[in-house]
Amino acid sequence: MNTFELELEVRDYECDLQGIVNNAVYLNYLEHTRHKFLLSRGIDFAKLHNEGIDLVVSRIEIDYKYSLTSGDKFVVKLNTHKEGHLRMVFEQEIVKIPDGKTAIKARVIGVGLKNGRPIKIDSIPGFESF
Amino acid sequence: MNTFELELEVRDYECDLQGIVNNAVYLNYLEHTRHKFLLSRGIDFAKLHNEGIDLVVSRIEIDYKYSLTSGDKFVVKLNTHKEGHLRMVFEQEIVKIPDGKTAIKARVIGVGLKNGRPIKIDSIPGFESF
Amino acid sequence: MNTFELELEVRDYECDLQGIVNNAVYLNYLEHTRHKFLLSRGIDFAKLHNEGIDLVVSRIEIDYKYSLTSGDKFVVKLNTHKEGHLRMVFEQEIVKIPDGKTAIKARVIGVGLKNGRPIKIDSIPGFESF
Amino acid sequence: MNTFELELEVRDYECDLQGIVNNAVYLNYLEHTRHKFLLSRGIDFAKLHNEGIDLVVSRIEIDYKYSLTSGDKFVVKLNTHKEGHLRMVFEQEIVKIPDGKTAIKARVIGVGLKNGRPIKIDSIPGFESF
Repeated sequence: MNTFELELEVRDYECDLQGIVNNAVYLNYLEHTRHKFLLSRGIDFAKLHNEGIDLVVSRIEIDYKYSLTSGDKFVVKLNTHKEGHLRMVFEQEIVKIPDGKTAIKARVIGVGLKNGRPIKIDSIPGFESF
Repeated sequence: MNTFELELEVRDYECDLQGIVNNAVYLNYLEHTRHKFLLSRGIDFAKLHNEGIDLVVSRIEIDYKYSLTSGDKFVVKLNTHKEGHLRMVFEQEIVKIPDGKTAIKARVIGVGLKNGRPIKIDSIPGFESF
Repeated sequence: MNTFELELEVRDYECDLQGIVNNAVYLNYLEHTRHKFLLSRGIDFAKLHNEGIDLVVSRIEIDYKYSLTSGDKFVVKLNTHKEGHLRMVFEQEIVKIPDGKTAIKARVIGVGLKNGRPIKIDSIPGFESF
Repeated sequence: MNTFELELEVRDYECDLQGIVNNAVYLNYLEHTRHKFLLSRGIDFAKLHNEGIDLVVSRIEIDYKYSLTSGDKFVVKLNTHKEGHLRMVFEQEIVKIPDGKTAIKARVIGVGLKNGRPIKIDSIPGFESF
């Protein structure tokens, strides 16, 4: 199954002057979870870059529903599938624990680039099986 | 007119190991531009927070089209309008200068909260005229 | 004992265009570890702020010895003691695991402020026993 | 003269839950100013990296004297000189404008690395004249 979960907690420096996690920081949480998911499947984002293949985000949609704050623990959920030959879709959700409140829901589209040009997802080492 | 432009440049620490601006950093650029726009209209995000009114993002859609990198200069464009009684829509675009390439296009929905509850945009000091 | 350890790992977005953890990010690691240490002693940085007491850094010295990079795991070690009535000294070290290489050594001086003025460490709830 | 000044302003996302600029963010300001100084002398940090030479920080000392906050404008001052064959010393200061309050004073030691090994500052293209 192309699902994955990662537990994290808010760090105080991630909160802004409103005392809540800044809207940009959720993209850090989402990215870190995607990279840990890929690692769990043997795909190393940094190593791919060194081999000339870059995984980049082409579109993000996020609904912010509940603001995380200092001390909050949460789980980042991920579900992924291919869309056509060129795109990976990551459905991601951040859920506060233990109370289960949804903090954000996100849909992230990733593509692979080689020398700056889109390449088929299937041609990226490790992605054959998605 | 509810339009605004802010010129910025990429700072090296904003680039990640791919050598390009990290996807989360664009939200910093977008937010900073919204806050500068609000300031230009006499609305101070930090001061509002201290008065118990929080402007928060409820939804972001971003299309990433061209990756900015070290040394790039760019302009963040903003266009805003009310949608219903509760929502401000910010259409934002980041354009590399001087060559005019569009780096990202974004649509950001903002809402106002007082004691954690949505309030009418018109009731927030400074927003009457939008 | 006033010692504490926290295990963390490098997140890809924390690396800059050199492919290594940016020098500023280590201060995030150090701060997060101090706050987790304080929490382990019943002291909540965010709660103290809401009660009008701010713990702030007055001086940092860091020796950067070995650069952490994508995928690295590390432990942040902390040792603390009072210095005079007004200062807490945190000796901190970041050590790569499992190989034990020292990434950085740091000395951080923290002080407490109430209404912007220094207060005695002993007068901050939870700090009596340091 | 090896002096340089850069005017910047606080961005709201750089403030943490205390409502002041987070201690790590000052290192971003300091780095950005060093890189702009180097650029003014024809030295491009990112380009050097691509040519196999990395400029890295080996030591930082910072005294935090006055906390910058939302809306503050400031100037980052820089003064640099060589120390021995291997080290560049950057004396840096951040001063709030227009009132001239010193926010921080810093001393940053930078070294050059080629294939991970220290190289003479004079051997780095552009540094001959320092």
